[in-house]
Amino acid sequence: MAIKLYGSLISTATQRVKAALAEKDIEYEFIIIDMAKNEHKKPEFLTRNPFGQVPAFEDGDLKLFESRAITQYIAHAYADKGNDLIFEDPKKMAKLSVWMEVESQKYEPIASKLVWELLLKPMFGMTTDEAIVEEYEKKMEGLLDVYESRLSESKYLGGDCFTLVDLHHLPTMKYLMGTRVKKLFDARPNVSAWAAEIQSRPGWIKAITT
Amino acid sequence: MAIKLYGSLISTATQRVKAALAEKDIEYEFIIIDMAKNEHKKPEFLTRNPFGQVPAFEDGDLKLFESRAITQYIAHAYADKGNDLIFEDPKKMAKLSVWMEVESQKYEPIASKLVWELLLKPMFGMTTDEAIVEEYEKKMEGLLDVYESRLSESKYLGGDCFTLVDLHHLPTMKYLMGTRVKKLFDARPNVSAWAAEIQSRPGWIKAITT
Repeated sequence: MAIKLYGSLISTATQRVKAALAEKDIEYEFIIIDMAKNEHKKPEFLTRNPFGQVPAFEDGDLKLFESRAITQYIAHAYADKGNDLIFEDPKKMAKLSVWMEVESQKYEPIASKLVWELLLKPMFGMTTDEAIVEEYEKKMEGLLDVYESRLSESKYLGGDCFTLVDLHHLPTMKYLMGTRVKKLFDARPNVSAWAAEIQSRPGWIKAITT
Repeated sequence: MAIKLYGSLISTATQRVKAALAEKDIEYEFIIIDMAKNEHKKPEFLTRNPFGQVPAFEDGDLKLFESRAITQYIAHAYADKGNDLIFEDPKKMAKLSVWMEVESQKYEPIASKLVWELLLKPMFGMTTDEAIVEEYEKKMEGLLDVYESRLSESKYLGGDCFTLVDLHHLPTMKYLMGTRVKKLFDARPNVSAWAAEIQSRPGWIKAITT
């Protein structure tokens, strides 16, 4: 099999790539990197990702890392397979790029901080910092207000159909939905409908269950 | 004139777009947004960027924000003008995307934190937090070690010629060169040569002097 994905099932970045592969209906070999055994810091893996982070990706002789670079490669290189995840029209693509930057620069730092405080710290026996949670919930509210407005004029964040930007939100969104942050999504009708729809996509279900 | 850039001369994100426009030799109208007068938070500007941040960009009827989305649009839409900033070959472009993600996800958060502590806080009469500086200098050293290795196999970060990823580093790099962080760049021969060369490009000089 030509395509290989090296990663961890609980890693949001790995899930992001699995979701793109599922949407494009692409077969691949999944190689689990055992982070408890520090496999991601060993010399063999560092040749795949010099930062020692999952995932890493291989398509024949092409080796990539950074989940969003991998999903973009998949969307472009396998444009004729599965569901379209990007636009051919340059202006539509430019607008999609804007919202992809919003996800990467704004949503992800807030979402991952909240997942850390509300889910991972308790799991590791550490104490959630309530002041940080409140600060980041306020930031999330400001961001979701912009999303609510955007989703009143466009069914999906990047345009009129599901694309990479919606997909990139899914892994951290899944974890957030198990925390009190869910009510911030629920309080905004457009955001709430969007979040429910993208989470129920067959590609996403396949990505997190196989 | 069809192309308009709304921004602030001291904003690194604005400088990023000015650099791309200069490299592509594109004429444009620059509209200064007076952030001291909170012009970036006023309703008229919020229609250009709902997050109330500079820059905002206009090319005819296309309106964009997020500096890296704007530079990507410029590189693609004006591929036949000025200097190439992207690759046509899909595999080369995929590799470039990896390093663009590294800049956005890894370099920028470290660099902007150091600029804040070492340059901006003193300017605003606040005290630099030495513990934070030391923490982020260590992070920067780890990152620059990876860059040093990458630049031993490839003249530029994205491949064998100057591209968007090198350009995206320039604005925060310029500020860092005026701080003690410069010695971390100087200590690594490949990084040091790369940083000196990209900072001396005519496009960059034009971007920060006009």
